[in-house]
Amino acid sequence: MRGNAVLILVVNCGGSSIKYKLIQMDSELMLAWGCLENIASAEALLTHYGLNHAPVRRELPYVEYSGGLDEILKLLVDPQSGVVADYNAIAAVGHRVVHAGEEFRGPVLIDEKVMAALTRCIELAPLHNPANIMGIRACQKLMPAKPQVAVFDNAFHREIPDYVYIYGLPYEYYEKYGVRRYGFHGISFAYMAARTEELLGIDLRQKRAVFLMLGSGCTANAFAFGKSLDVSTGFTPNEGLIQSSRSGDVDAAAISFIMRKEGLAPDELDDVLYRQSGWLGISGVSKDFRAVEQAAHAGNPRARLAIDAFVYRAKKYVGAYAAAMGGLDLLVFAGGVGEKSHEVRQAICLGLEFLGIRLDSNLNAGLNGEGLISDHAAAAPVLVVNSNEEIYIARETQKTLAQGKMGYKYLADAGGCGENERYRTSLCRVSPKG
Amino acid sequence: MRGNAVLILVVNCGGSSIKYKLIQMDSELMLAWGCLENIASAEALLTHYGLNHAPVRRELPYVEYSGGLDEILKLLVDPQSGVVADYNAIAAVGHRVVHAGEEFRGPVLIDEKVMAALTRCIELAPLHNPANIMGIRACQKLMPAKPQVAVFDNAFHREIPDYVYIYGLPYEYYEKYGVRRYGFHGISFAYMAARTEELLGIDLRQKRAVFLMLGSGCTANAFAFGKSLDVSTGFTPNEGLIQSSRSGDVDAAAISFIMRKEGLAPDELDDVLYRQSGWLGISGVSKDFRAVEQAAHAGNPRARLAIDAFVYRAKKYVGAYAAAMGGLDLLVFAGGVGEKSHEVRQAICLGLEFLGIRLDSNLNAGLNGEGLISDHAAAAPVLVVNSNEEIYIARETQKTLAQGKMGYKYLADAGGCGENERYRTSLCRVSPKG
Repeated sequence: MRGNAVLILVVNCGGSSIKYKLIQMDSELMLAWGCLENIASAEALLTHYGLNHAPVRRELPYVEYSGGLDEILKLLVDPQSGVVADYNAIAAVGHRVVHAGEEFRGPVLIDEKVMAALTRCIELAPLHNPANIMGIRACQKLMPAKPQVAVFDNAFHREIPDYVYIYGLPYEYYEKYGVRRYGFHGISFAYMAARTEELLGIDLRQKRAVFLMLGSGCTANAFAFGKSLDVSTGFTPNEGLIQSSRSGDVDAAAISFIMRKEGLAPDELDDVLYRQSGWLGISGVSKDFRAVEQAAHAGNPRARLAIDAFVYRAKKYVGAYAAAMGGLDLLVFAGGVGEKSHEVRQAICLGLEFLGIRLDSNLNAGLNGEGLISDHAAAAPVLVVNSNEEIYIARETQKTLAQGKMGYKYLADAGGCGENERYRTSLCRVSPKG
Repeated sequence: MRGNAVLILVVNCGGSSIKYKLIQMDSELMLAWGCLENIASAEALLTHYGLNHAPVRRELPYVEYSGGLDEILKLLVDPQSGVVADYNAIAAVGHRVVHAGEEFRGPVLIDEKVMAALTRCIELAPLHNPANIMGIRACQKLMPAKPQVAVFDNAFHREIPDYVYIYGLPYEYYEKYGVRRYGFHGISFAYMAARTEELLGIDLRQKRAVFLMLGSGCTANAFAFGKSLDVSTGFTPNEGLIQSSRSGDVDAAAISFIMRKEGLAPDELDDVLYRQSGWLGISGVSKDFRAVEQAAHAGNPRARLAIDAFVYRAKKYVGAYAAAMGGLDLLVFAGGVGEKSHEVRQAICLGLEFLGIRLDSNLNAGLNGEGLISDHAAAAPVLVVNSNEEIYIARETQKTLAQGKMGYKYLADAGGCGENERYRTSLCRVSPKG
């Protein structure tokens, strides 16, 4: 049935989970997918789905990345519940890698030089890169002959200008440690850009778009004339929007105050910022946005406050990025909250009529899946896209294999928009006198 | 000559300086003014100006606030260089006080209850409140019969909504320690609002304005329908715009990273954020913006980067606040940089035509003092105002004496703009279902 279609396995090793999808590339059909959660704990649980098969749930207490991937690969070729005959059917493995610092511009075929670079970037992504490295090592061990490709989450933001990425800190922190804005959710934004062009039949190299990726992690992106100009996540994924349990923007000098008052060491502070903050921290209710919404509807004032603060900050980022780009042509929502909460979308768009935004409340409330939610006559359409990082990783993996070169469309296609490019980079330059 | 005109002495005790002005209130004429710099150091220097007198420069090594104020008061009544016969001519002393936490809504006549509140707020403004307290104590000692009034810098922002002031941190930090956005430069903004109405003959209760106070400290303010809605300085004056030596917005999780790498304790971190960052930190050139501009013009790339980053962030705040207010009717610049650098004003306004902003480049470049710098047909006028905190403190002091009540116009006049008020507070509320 699947004939000679190319199959790509996508592996996304997070801090405590492995997500995976096996994708048949000609039709982008998912043959199998699943998630191993709570790795290295007593509650480690693998949930596996195969096309035309019953789901498999398997408890794997204290399993590590290598053992977990071993189980996953076995399920793919299992005579009963498998979807392929053997590993030979799989052309390559594409790995989501969170952080490449300034080392790569796009996806790369993994070799030992790449592994060394990922290891160097561990301190920039202490929660993610070690998991990514373990996942790659496990796949190399289990499928030694398969090409492995790294697709970098921050490479999408690789060309944001220096005046956007530099912090107002002593410059030596940038030189010595690479402290700068990197930005995250790049793979999601790359997918959103491609999907937006597909759905609306437009060329984003002619447009100024704001992308709002609102999931449990949240990032806003100013996508100007086909390139990422600015991004709300920064040196870490913590900056910017209020997220499920990450703080987003906080006065840096409040951090030292809190450390003194609570007697926190830097690592303990990170735990507060990453895992006890965001809408969980404000509401005290949950990391799950639906639970916070339900509590707000039931009259919980802190849940209401968490949602209002979340919405307000997203609204400000839309305005800030419109100013950065000299206007707005398009607003795109994605992510669990962005795709499912019509109330959040409505609240973010309220008052943005001056930017050309005008929602159609029926389209917005009645949306099923993805599509336009703005009034057809509004100057700046508002679109909802169902994000699919794995498809993007699979495409980039296939392209990298085929072309042996970097695959990020919007990083590769630097030419062809000279006028806009000049406009973009001239926006904030103060002309020298005389 | 000065007859029965009311005289108010304004005292602004900073972390290492005392600034003062003696103002005749009927004409708002300055009779004397000056500054004692580098308090408690070998370089302590008093520079005093009296109307129709030669300037006085006096070295006062290791003088403290009390001794410094003693010298200043003596100069005011000096038979040779003084401007008044004795202290009886002075009606009251108005003190700028940086931080009142959430304790006061406006100016107050100082008594021991007020002093206790200022002492409670020391940890919220460790650099400023102790100096303010010492300055008040010194004046009480030297002029025991005179009414002393505290005018609070953060009271102007006292009514910003909860969804604007709350950070995405565990809510208990707000409850236990008052960690929230307070906002600073409020006295400057109150003056800017009054002066804007005066110069343009408009009622700001009908307008949405962004104020950019760009001095060595910088704050952006969203002034919506006669009230401060949002402000870029937050829990401390460090947040927001890039300032002379303060960082402005930084990823909070970058802070713990830097502390680990540099082995910094919280107090050392504060020193980095407050005194080694901002355009000084990026450029490595100077805290003096003119010096950074000169270096940029001479080709120094880090000086250019510091200016571009400063401009870019200010531009983003204008857009963010326009989004927060549902549009923009007016942009107002003040502060040393805002009043003197036409290049910075031009660069900030470039690309903001979609907000109705269009500078007249001749008016902008040729501006002398204050006035409009926008094209007369532009939808959102752009104004430059010469800020004068001391006049505002003197007015509020006089009003507080006369009325025995809180004097902040825009805090006191809560009524009269019901429609706009409803609009403002409804902007970010997500309606409960059903």
